[in-house]
Amino acid sequence: MSKLSTDCDINFPRTDRSRIRREPHLGSYLRSDVYAVVDASPLCHIGYVIDGAPFVTPTMHWRKDNRIYWHGSIGSRFLKQVDGAPACVTCSLVDGYVLARSALNHAVNYRSAMMFGTANVMEDLDDRAEALRDFMEGLFPGRWDTLRPVMEKELRATSVLWMDIEEATVKARTGPPSDADESHVPVWAGVIPMQTMLAEGQPAPEASASTRLPDPLAALIASGRLR
Amino acid sequence: MSKLSTDCDINFPRTDRSRIRREPHLGSYLRSDVYAVVDASPLCHIGYVIDGAPFVTPTMHWRKDNRIYWHGSIGSRFLKQVDGAPACVTCSLVDGYVLARSALNHAVNYRSAMMFGTANVMEDLDDRAEALRDFMEGLFPGRWDTLRPVMEKELRATSVLWMDIEEATVKARTGPPSDADESHVPVWAGVIPMQTMLAEGQPAPEASASTRLPDPLAALIASGRLR
Ligand SMILES: Cc1cc2nc3c(=O)[nH]c(=O)nc-3n(C[C@H](O)[C@H](O)[C@H](O)COP(=O)(O)OP(=O)(O)OC[C@H]3O[C@@H](n4cnc5c(N)ncnc54)[C@H](O)[C@@H]3O)c2cc1C
Ligand SMILES: Cc1cc2nc3c(=O)[nH]c(=O)nc-3n(C[C@H](O)[C@H](O)[C@H](O)COP(=O)(O)OP(=O)(O)OC[C@H]3O[C@@H](n4cnc5c(N)ncnc54)[C@H](O)[C@@H]3O)c2cc1C
Ligand code: HEM
Ligand code: HEM
Repeated sequence: MSKLSTDCDINFPRTDRSRIRREPHLGSYLRSDVYAVVDASPLCHIGYVIDGAPFVTPTMHWRKDNRIYWHGSIGSRFLKQVDGAPACVTCSLVDGYVLARSALNHAVNYRSAMMFGTANVMEDLDDRAEALRDFMEGLFPGRWDTLRPVMEKELRATSVLWMDIEEATVKARTGPPSDADESHVPVWAGVIPMQTMLAEGQPAPEASASTRLPDPLAALIASGRLR
Repeated sequence: MSKLSTDCDINFPRTDRSRIRREPHLGSYLRSDVYAVVDASPLCHIGYVIDGAPFVTPTMHWRKDNRIYWHGSIGSRFLKQVDGAPACVTCSLVDGYVLARSALNHAVNYRSAMMFGTANVMEDLDDRAEALRDFMEGLFPGRWDTLRPVMEKELRATSVLWMDIEEATVKARTGPPSDADESHVPVWAGVIPMQTMLAEGQPAPEASASTRLPDPLAALIASGRLR
């Protein structure tokens, strides 16, 4: 049986919330573009509302299919308040400063994704363990099974949240400044790239000399990726 | 005349909005700590509310005393909606992954600031020009006067927003994993540092060979700072 892909399999819907108005040529609604930014980004910023006022909390996230996850303490105000409420999850990567001849044309090269949905708390303890395992394995493949096993009381103390992505957009800028037409102005113009990288692992002071950095961690550091 | 500093000169107030509940030992209300994170961070994430729903928009920011500024198009939905409304501005820097022996003790080394206040649009054109000059000079000292001068129509197209910081908090984690008591578990534990750096400038393709990278830009790249 052949599966026909519809536009909704490929694109997130354009709603009043998510239609890109400024610089729409930089934008995309493609699921694959959204997921690429989410998966490349080491952290996200989660927006939520308490008593009408906005809060933005930085946190680690992970993704499985169209679902974004994050975790923290069962006692966290943020995680308790956001349950069942609308949330906006934003991931941003800065790739460089763009220096032009006119002030106005200065810019930043970047990739960012804004995702909208409803946040939910995961109740079941086994589901939590499985989700946290996915989190760990996504960051550090093979590590979960080498750790001191997780205890039930630890799972009880941990809150896992998830949000199905209902609408999402990506914006990205690349390349040199866009004022080539003013290149007669005698000032340096171009891009100063910004790069984020993992560095050599620093073993804990009390670690025994016999534990060496596992290959998947060495590979992660060498890859140039952040996760 | 001697000026006595009060606690409010040194600390932001602890309110219901900003009192740190989770991991309060990682937190600070010191103005100097907040400003240090804001000034080190290349971008911020601004939270605001439209029709009860949260939005988080990444943007560049700059600071003067206790005021945070940002800019964009006069036609931006985000910049129009946020005028006169409560906003939360968050800056986050990731310094490394912290790998422990138990899953629970994994963490991230980070510095982050959350700031609360009311966003305002700057009306006066001269004020806008001055603020944008501060923005440029803060990032790239000496550059403003070397550019093609800014035109009035460009200033009219540009919106500058500002927010006085009413409440703010910093959280920061540093150092190795905190489960030294489980160091008998035979697994690598320690920190994988994450570093963000500026790289060698890439001149625009149409730039004449005679424009070279000005010293302040070379110094910024060499400094290890991001702004
Ligand atoms: C890069 C990064 C990754 C993180 N990853 C995770 C994660 O995976 N899981 C997790 O639980 N937490 C993570 N945190 C910490 C997270 O930002 C919150 O501090 C934590 O979730 C507690 O939130 P809360 O609302 O329950 O705190 P509360 O203590 O209830 O918050 C009350 C007030 O404390 C202040 N505050 C809280 N958090 C911060 C902060 N980060 N910076 C400045 N002020 C703050 C604010 O004023 C806030 O309104 C991460 C932080 C950073 C910077
Ligand atoms: C690192 C970085 C720095 C930036 N600096 C600035 C700056 O200094 N000034 C400035 O004006 N803009 C800046 N931007 C772009 C900024 O995030 C907004 O795109 C821009 O301000 C237009 O906002 P708006 O709400 O008016 O857009 P609108 O087009 O009205 O927004 C409507 C919808 O478009 C989508 N959308 C908007 N922006 C983004 C985004 N960044 N990523 C994904 N989806 C998006 C969302 O679904 C949003 O709800 C920066 C972005 C990044 C990642
Ligand atoms: C991939 C590995 C993990 C990373 C990188 C990670 C990262 C973090 C970070 C950065 C925090 C915030 C601490 C703070 O407020 O400063 C946190 C909190 C927390 N994490 Fe994790 N974590 C990981 C895995 C786990 C797992 C597997 C569990 C549970 C078994 C867990 C349970 C918790 C709990 C309960 C808190 C709340 C601490 C508190 O506020 O009291 N974490 N985690
Ligand atoms: C320090 C230098 C500057 C930097 C790094 C910078 C960066 C940016 C960035 C990243 C955007 C977002 C574009 C997008 O949506 O992708 C932007 C938008 C904008 N900037 Fe700047 N800027 C700078 C200086 C200025 C100055 C001095 C002016 C005005 C004179 C200006 C006017 C604008 C305007 C009008 C927009 C909106 C574009 C639109 O959405 O149509 N900028 N800027």
